[in-house]
Amino acid sequence: MPPRFEVIGVQGIGEVHPGDDLARLIVEAAAAQATPLLDGDVLVVGQKIVSKAEGRLVRLDDVTPSPAAVSMAAQLGRDARLVEVILRECRRIVRMDRGVLIAETHHGWICANAGVDQSNVERDWVALLPEDPDRSARRLREAVRERGVETGIIIADTFGRPWREGLTNVAIGVSGIAPLRSYLGERDPAGRELQATILALADELAGAAEVVMGKLDRIPVAVVRGLRLAPGEEGSKPLLRDPARDLFR
Amino acid sequence: MPPRFEVIGVQGIGEVHPGDDLARLIVEAAAAQATPLLDGDVLVVGQKIVSKAEGRLVRLDDVTPSPAAVSMAAQLGRDARLVEVILRECRRIVRMDRGVLIAETHHGWICANAGVDQSNVERDWVALLPEDPDRSARRLREAVRERGVETGIIIADTFGRPWREGLTNVAIGVSGIAPLRSYLGERDPAGRELQATILALADELAGAAEVVMGKLDRIPVAVVRGLRLAPGEEGSKPLLRDPARDLFR
Repeated sequence: MPPRFEVIGVQGIGEVHPGDDLARLIVEAAAAQATPLLDGDVLVVGQKIVSKAEGRLVRLDDVTPSPAAVSMAAQLGRDARLVEVILRECRRIVRMDRGVLIAETHHGWICANAGVDQSNVERDWVALLPEDPDRSARRLREAVRERGVETGIIIADTFGRPWREGLTNVAIGVSGIAPLRSYLGERDPAGRELQATILALADELAGAAEVVMGKLDRIPVAVVRGLRLAPGEEGSKPLLRDPARDLFR
Repeated sequence: MPPRFEVIGVQGIGEVHPGDDLARLIVEAAAAQATPLLDGDVLVVGQKIVSKAEGRLVRLDDVTPSPAAVSMAAQLGRDARLVEVILRECRRIVRMDRGVLIAETHHGWICANAGVDQSNVERDWVALLPEDPDRSARRLREAVRERGVETGIIIADTFGRPWREGLTNVAIGVSGIAPLRSYLGERDPAGRELQATILALADELAGAAEVVMGKLDRIPVAVVRGLRLAPGEEGSKPLLRDPARDLFR
């Protein structure tokens, strides 16, 4: 039997509001489209609905930009209140040039605008990344388990990357699966193992899910079905490169 | 009906040698495992078997390293003959530090060792990337079509990336599908389109395929089935970021 898996978009979740029970919304929407969740499924959940359910929303009218934010916003040609929110969400500015602000979030992710996003939220509001996406993933997994299904969870966002055009969906929160997969290295004729190859499995699954996840929140969740993955409780942190090993800080 | 697709690994292709007919090997192996190729499938093909079929192999004993390669190899702690091959395959060194050589290939891809790889080849040989992976993809697509099936082709390799741990499989050659997908931007209440989001679809499909593609060449091909993708004849080049727009050169 060849190895195979399926990726299924979950429709009908609708607009998510602060306090909503995402587990219920996802389990019911999957059942309603005749693809009920199964043990062993991995749910890839778009960050935006997690942030909305957790109330990680800021109204720009409530934000008073600092002088630094006003100055940076002028250089970038951006709204100073938005830049203020981004500065609060980041621990380091990685690049600020040509209207683009690449920042390292408090979690350690490096992405545009520290993940602060104006799309798919009400006008004059912005959505922040979840405060602790691994905790969000863990809680969602537990809430889905209480509904009788054992799943892995990946919370995903679309990030740009150097050198290559186009965003890809990547994991920012993980629960229940190991985010990296290591292939044993080859052995040379003397039987020595040469080198292990480590793949970013959770990022590859997040990307696979994006293919069926429409933008504009129409399909904010996808089910990855049919893989037997190594369990893991280390969350998403193994995906963060150690700064000491990063040649592109 | 929810959007869904399947990823199926193709087993039994076996060791590939220069001159082998990859289309025949893939079509026959897919049929032999009772998953014959269908019109509309996208084949994700590992770069290594394409390079082998095209004879893109170099024996290190036949390589005379230049003085520059000898000097760089000493700094890197690498084989000078290997460094010589890497230098021949690249048009720019991006980083050279801590034993790692990140280079821009003649195609424009930025990756470790300009894609030159010692794994899964005979001892003292190295494999180069295909000379023109888009041409390789186009020819493979034509050869599969001659066997009666209309497919898209992605030739993929596993590359590292800044900031995030783990390699991901990405597209280096494409034929028959558009490698980028653009979502229309939102409209604000006045009906103005705000911003388009561009996703690197071919990279996300390459990554999805990797999940079933074992290392060590056991499963060098995967079939992505069930998507209706936009056709495209522009190859992989839209995935290359314009240097003028890249903040991380």
